[in-house]
Formats: sequence, C-alpha cells, structure tokens
Amino acid sequence: MAGSLPVSPLAPSGFPELPIVDGVRFATVAAGVRYTGRTDVMLATLDAGTVIAGVFTRSATRSAPVLDCQAKLGGSSDKPAAILVNSGNSNAFTGRNGTESVRAITETTAHVCGVPEERVFTASTGVIGEPLPHDRITSKIEELAGALAPDGIDAAARAIMTTDTFPKGAGTTVRIDGKMVRIAGIAKGSGMIAPDMATMLVYIFTDARIPQDELQALVSAHNEVTFNSITVDSDTSTSDTLLVAATGQSGADVSGNDAFSTALHGVMRDLAHQVVRDGEGASKFVEITVSGALNDRDARIHALSIANSPLVKTAIAGEDPNWGRVVMAVGKSGAAADRDRLAIRFGNVIVAENGWVSPDYNEAEAAAHMKKQDLLISVDIGLGDGSATVWTCDLTHGYIEINADYRS
Amino acid sequence: MAGSLPVSPLAPSGFPELPIVDGVRFATVAAGVRYTGRTDVMLATLDAGTVIAGVFTRSATRSAPVLDCQAKLGGSSDKPAAILVNSGNSNAFTGRNGTESVRAITETTAHVCGVPEERVFTASTGVIGEPLPHDRITSKIEELAGALAPDGIDAAARAIMTTDTFPKGAGTTVRIDGKMVRIAGIAKGSGMIAPDMATMLVYIFTDARIPQDELQALVSAHNEVTFNSITVDSDTSTSDTLLVAATGQSGADVSGNDAFSTALHGVMRDLAHQVVRDGEGASKFVEITVSGALNDRDARIHALSIANSPLVKTAIAGEDPNWGRVVMAVGKSGAAADRDRLAIRFGNVIVAENGWVSPDYNEAEAAAHMKKQDLLISVDIGLGDGSATVWTCDLTHGYIEINADYRS
Repeated sequence: MAGSLPVSPLAPSGFPELPIVDGVRFATVAAGVRYTGRTDVMLATLDAGTVIAGVFTRSATRSAPVLDCQAKLGGSSDKPAAILVNSGNSNAFTGRNGTESVRAITETTAHVCGVPEERVFTASTGVIGEPLPHDRITSKIEELAGALAPDGIDAAARAIMTTDTFPKGAGTTVRIDGKMVRIAGIAKGSGMIAPDMATMLVYIFTDARIPQDELQALVSAHNEVTFNSITVDSDTSTSDTLLVAATGQSGADVSGNDAFSTALHGVMRDLAHQVVRDGEGASKFVEITVSGALNDRDARIHALSIANSPLVKTAIAGEDPNWGRVVMAVGKSGAAADRDRLAIRFGNVIVAENGWVSPDYNEAEAAAHMKKQDLLISVDIGLGDGSATVWTCDLTHGYIEINADYRS
Repeated sequence: MAGSLPVSPLAPSGFPELPIVDGVRFATVAAGVRYTGRTDVMLATLDAGTVIAGVFTRSATRSAPVLDCQAKLGGSSDKPAAILVNSGNSNAFTGRNGTESVRAITETTAHVCGVPEERVFTASTGVIGEPLPHDRITSKIEELAGALAPDGIDAAARAIMTTDTFPKGAGTTVRIDGKMVRIAGIAKGSGMIAPDMATMLVYIFTDARIPQDELQALVSAHNEVTFNSITVDSDTSTSDTLLVAATGQSGADVSGNDAFSTALHGVMRDLAHQVVRDGEGASKFVEITVSGALNDRDARIHALSIANSPLVKTAIAGEDPNWGRVVMAVGKSGAAADRDRLAIRFGNVIVAENGWVSPDYNEAEAAAHMKKQDLLISVDIGLGDGSATVWTCDLTHGYIEINADYRS
C-alpha cells in the first residue's frame, strides 16, 4: 500500500528542480479519501487562454472521470481552467455514483475557482469499484483554492501517488525566438502499466503559445513513442490520463517549432521512463529495441512480446542472459520472423545470429551486462526496415508482494 | 530444476491406472542428456496400421523436431512407427546442428526399430539454444528397443518431465459396437504455457480404428477447447507437440462415433487441466468462463485477457476477490464490452452487475470462494451469445523462484 514500500532501486536521486510555468498554480491537501497521513488531492489552475491537449486510456471500461475529460477536450480556451486529481480511489466501475461524483467535484471546483465547469478536468486513481467519497474532496476545495501557488508542482507530484515509491517530475527550458519557453510535468504510475496507457496520470504544463489542434497532434505523436511504449505488467488501467496544458504566457509562438517538439518529447520520455523505473517490484530498467522487422508495426509487436513475457522478465530478474526466451517471445508474437535470420544482443554482446548462438558469444560478457541496473536487449529480425523501441522492467518477488494484497 | 521442486498442491492424488492400448509399447532410459539420476528419453513404438494425427506450436521460431514432425504427418500408415522424446534439451534455436540431431535420432531409431524413417516422430523439451548431445540418445536406442513393453506408459510420462512436479496421465475405456476402445495419454508441461500451445508435449494412444483425416479433424477441434484453452504465463513454447496415434487393434470402427469423440475430448481436457495444475508456482486452479460476448472469438479474447492478467493472477494468489481487476482485464482486451452491462461472479457469488457492485454482493462469501483451491470466475459481457472457457492458475512467488534461475 502507498507509502509503505521501499523506494525503487531504479529511482532518480531526487525530484528535479522544475521551471515555474507562468499561468499555472498548484495546491494540495490531505482529504482522507483513502490514505491517512499524506496529501491525496491536488488542484492546478490554468489562466485564461490556456489550450489543453490530452490522451486517454482506450479501455472499454474506462472510468467516469476519463469519459468526462474526453468530452471536454478541445473546447474554447478563452476562460481559465482547473485540474483536480485525487489518489486512493479511481472512481472506476462505480456505476451512476461515478458520474455523480464527477459532477459534484467539477461543479464545486468550477464554483470555487471561478472557471466554467466545462473547463474543469478531474481524474481519480486508486482502487476500482468502490464509490468515491467525493464530499471529502469537495469540502476541501475552498482550502485548496486559498493555497494556490506557482511553485507547488513537487507537492502535486506527491499528492497523486498510489503505489508509486517516488514522485515523478521532469522539465526543461528551451529558448525560442529569443524567449524562454518552460515545460514542467509530473506523473504517477507503477503497476497496471502497458500501452494504452496504464494506471498512469500525467500532467505537463508549458508557457508556450500554440493552437490546441497542433498541441494535440504533437502530444498524440509523442505519446506513441513514450507512454504508449512502456509496459510494466501488460495490464492497462481504466483511468489513464495525459493532459498537456499550454498557457501561452511566455509569448513564444512554437507553431511548427522543432525545438519545442523535441523538448516536449524529452519531458514525456523522461516521465515515461520514471514510471517504468517505479514499476512494481522492479530491479532492472530494460530498453528493448527491435530492428529489421517487416515494418514498424511488426517491430512493435515483437518488442512488446519480449517486454511482456513473464519468462523474459523473470530471467532478467535472475540476471540470466537467457536469449532462448527472447527467441521464444519473438516466435510467439504473431509478427513475421525467421528463426535463422534473428540476431540478438544483450548490451553490445552479440548472443545469437543465423539461427544459433553466435560464434563470438561470450557468456561471461553477457552475464556481466545482465548485472547492470539498466539493460539493453536488441533484436534484429533480419527481414526488413521496421523498428521500434519499448521500455520495461523485470518481474520480481516484489511485484507479487505488492499485488497479492493491494486491497488488504 | 527438474526433480528439485515440491509437488504442486493442485496435483492429483497419484498417477491414474491407464488402460493398455494394443499395438503400442513403451521403454525409457536415463541417457544423461542434461539431468542425472532420472530417465530422460522415452521410446514408443506403434504397430503397422497405426494412423497418427497431430497439432503443433504455431511459433515462428519452432524447433527442428517440430518442423520434422509436421512434414511427416499424414503419410502412409502401412508400416510401423515410433515416437522418441527426450527431456532436458529442446533442440530449439540450434541452427544446422538442430536438423542434424533430428536426422541422427530418426535414422538410428528407424534402423534399430525397423520402421521407416518417415514414420519416426521425435520431440525434445528443455533448454532452448544449446546443441542437443544426440549421441547420448542414439547410443541408448538399442537398449530402449530391447526393453519395449505394453505397460510402460507411466514410466514414459516420467521420462518426458522437465519442470513438471508430477507425471501426467489420463485415459478411459468406452464400449463401441460391442468392442472395448481404449484411450491412454500422457503429457508434460508446466511453464511457457499458453494457447498455441506451450512447452507441452502430449501423446495419446488408442486402439480405435479411424481414418487419419478424420482423427486429425477430431484432434484439431478438441485441441481448440482443451490445450489451446489453457494458459499458465502467456508464453508459448517453440516445441509444442500433440500426437494422437490410433492403432485400430480394438477392431472398433469409430468413424463418426460421438462416444469416441467425447471420450477423446475428455482425455485431452483432463491432460490439459493437469498441465495447468502443474503450472509453475501454482496454488489455485482457475476456470474462467465468459458468456454474452458479441461472438465466441470475442469471448475467448476476454477470457484470455483475464487469464493472462498478472494483476488478476496475483489477486487470486492473495485470495482477494478483486473484481476490479477483472473489469480492467475485460476493458483492455480489445474485444467489445460495455462497462454498464458486465456481470461478474466468483463461484456462485454475484459480485458486479449493471456497471457496479451488485446490491446482493457479499464480500465474505466472495472471500470464502477465493480460499478454495479450485476457483471459478464467470463474466457475462451482456452483448450477445458468444462464450468461451479457459483455464489458468495464479501467479505466485513460486513462479518467480522457478524462472529467475532455471538455467543456473
């Protein structure tokens, strides 16, 4: 349960110093939704003029807050906006109560913060199927509104944690047309993580000026190669939400600007990697690259088949360069492969090629690579030009410990 | 490693008494392929006139023995036949050596046993990617041939085990047209088990008389709802082989006979369930039935999504009636679902319906069901008439222990 777990050995050394993004203010509170002795609600307000893009879980059983956010995306940005997130209860699969909880929260937030209700975005993360005690949240919104400040993003990152063992933040500053553009984001998520997108909440703020449809296109494209390219356990949450809010207050117009796109991509990838690094029970961070597939789609299927294979993941946990399991995962994926054209590398160590162990294979070198905390598994399918990269972690006793009694 | 693991708590009380199938003889030997102090090669010979049907892994990286068997299926049944299986080394991803090992084994077996080489079916199970020391096997074939006996099927079941904790056998006798028809089968497999089909070897023998194409059709159909409907860990072996040999020596013609079809189906399902009951680290046997899906294909997708979800499987290990994770697994499967039409039962306990916890839900009753060793999870999707049943086990520390150092 949250707070009781040791910090992941893969965690960064600390929460980064994030730039202040003009037009955004944060506040957090301990509302006692489920947890005690910690903050569990965060409010962010966004000045008028802020455009908001988003990506959501594609689960057929997505939560009431997700449905509400999806309906609101792309509206007018003339008025201010607010984001309110609680941890401890996901308000997912809660029937009509779920919708009522969303309405109570968005109505109260709109009223207290002076924003239109159609500009209030809410999210909930935690246990599925239990009614959200939303009055514990609504009764705190006045207090939250009174505490709003520009520099509260680190506290916000903490308030949205569930089984996370560390708060996740990433940011950067990039000079565009002589103006400084700031990007700062936070994320939560550690289990039920798989493409499309996982129990993952991500909020990224920037003072760039950009039309909503262009921001949406950027976010969707970068999402495919960041949050949709990580997997902890192949399970996908009903609550996943990524919102990117651009206040425009830097005055820098970033339309079509590659530097901004690259900077945003970098922040998204950094946060995605942090989610994997906090994978439940993770002791290894693993990059899996597949090249030479018939096409990019096939490459991604192979990469995810490797990344999600319990046998590959347990071998990694055991620091065993068990490339036979990589062959197995490629073989079962359903995408095109030819046993005798595969080439497999662990780090820089060539392991297998031409349908068998490489004559250059050195087990001691491969075993040495497996002892590292950050691993690379590269597979060349040998059939075409398709490539993909995904990130995952190993499967350890810690995962079982965390998940065999999450609710107890 | 084989032999060192405690017997699964889900194991049957003992190896069953199997009927003697006329026309089939068995022998086993300790060839030291990889293991010491146990048998690791089994030979079965089949009299002339025996027809053989089979189903194999669909892995794109299937092993040399599998490719060889596939090529041989459906040939003339005029001559006798032989099946030779080793454990300890799968001869998978072994390049040209793999093909040479298969040829050495089939040639020697054919020569020693007096059967045509195109009627020798071989299989190997164990570690992937290490060359098979096939001379250890070929040097023992004379000894095997000298020891052939009709009643050695239980020893054969033991010789093909790898990480299995108990030998698997099932059989039955059915009266058809006044004659007794016998069916006796053995299987191995406990990890890398998923549809299509897993590290699973299955050999079933019957004295029924049936044309090869009809036997093949029966075996393929029953396979879909037995071996292709079990999953331990979603991983699929490169070596899976199911062979069904019908010697015809009962004199009973079973063409179009429902009693035979049912009996064969029963033996196949029994063996498939035993594979799940020996799932690596398993402490629970779980039947998952999905009804009310748009069609049977969607039902199967939902059922496998539930069965393969690490979060569902760890909840089962923790005896937690965590139906929220079942909702999650249905939502992520990709098949059609409507959150508000789902109905979920654990055993006979209705848990969720109409998009939320059932008003009749009794957590104590659900928790009591979860404490059983054999569990039933039923999901009604509420959209159509499609249905499917799959079987799986839970995900425990035992799975990690076994697989984090299989090769060491």
